[in-house]
Amino acid sequence: MPRDIHTEVLTGAAFAPFGDVLEVGGEPDMVINGGMCGRFHDLARMDFGPDGRAGISLFQGQSYRLPLELTMVERHPLGSQAFLPTTSAPFLVVVAADDSGRPGRPRAFVTKPGQGVNYHRGIWHGVLTPLEPACYFVVDRIGAGSNVEEYVFSEPYIIRP
Amino acid sequence: MPRDIHTEVLTGAAFAPFGDVLEVGGEPDMVINGGMCGRFHDLARMDFGPDGRAGISLFQGQSYRLPLELTMVERHPLGSQAFLPTTSAPFLVVVAADDSGRPGRPRAFVTKPGQGVNYHRGIWHGVLTPLEPACYFVVDRIGAGSNVEEYVFSEPYIIRP
Repeated sequence: MPRDIHTEVLTGAAFAPFGDVLEVGGEPDMVINGGMCGRFHDLARMDFGPDGRAGISLFQGQSYRLPLELTMVERHPLGSQAFLPTTSAPFLVVVAADDSGRPGRPRAFVTKPGQGVNYHRGIWHGVLTPLEPACYFVVDRIGAGSNVEEYVFSEPYIIRP
Repeated sequence: MPRDIHTEVLTGAAFAPFGDVLEVGGEPDMVINGGMCGRFHDLARMDFGPDGRAGISLFQGQSYRLPLELTMVERHPLGSQAFLPTTSAPFLVVVAADDSGRPGRPRAFVTKPGQGVNYHRGIWHGVLTPLEPACYFVVDRIGAGSNVEEYVFSEPYIIRP
């Protein structure tokens, strides 16, 4: 099986099996503040389990370049994780469906300006991979317990534009 | 009492009575992803009450100009509310201490690039006031119940640079 993975455009429909794309689109769900603000409401399916709570952290990420060697993915069994960019710089979003407890063949998406993502609880994904140096607000689970599982591929995948 | 309010630089210390400034500063709490990412951990004191949960929405805001007539403020008795900018455009952050159930004299802060804010539950604040058109990820309470209280000033304040 070829180890090359070509990037795809990130859309809500394509990403639905893995999580939510958080973006402005169409008409807002509410118009507030005397018409000065549109609210696109409650876009992320978050889940922090019975013993966790939502926290906001900031990730300051260095940049990666394509083609990129993908050696591992990880998942968070106890909670969802959202990445909310502070700039319009694109980032790579790597995800994989689960196949009997191991990640299947990954898919790689490149964000458009203004798009954030929320990985659903337990979804295999790559680490934060900005394509320019950038900061991200991250909404994920704060709480006790082991919330990261890593999987190292026997042979890396190569992610290409 | 003069109705003019001059803007202040937003710092975590100045804003502490009202909420959290979410920004990168100093050394990260953790360095992850093989040194490629710094995590500034759990920066917001969020509170969604016993019957609420955290949601992520997107606010698409039109821009305001200074001097600005401040006619009202609002507060959310049931939950905190975080504004996480998607660009480096500055926004105005208006807050007021409570004085026997009514807002006291407001203070007005202007953000620096990369700064988000989290209003603590029940804090009087102005509506979203971008100084350039901009979008914001908003983390606030999703749930039943009346979660907004407005206060209209008998005479507007004027916010000046």
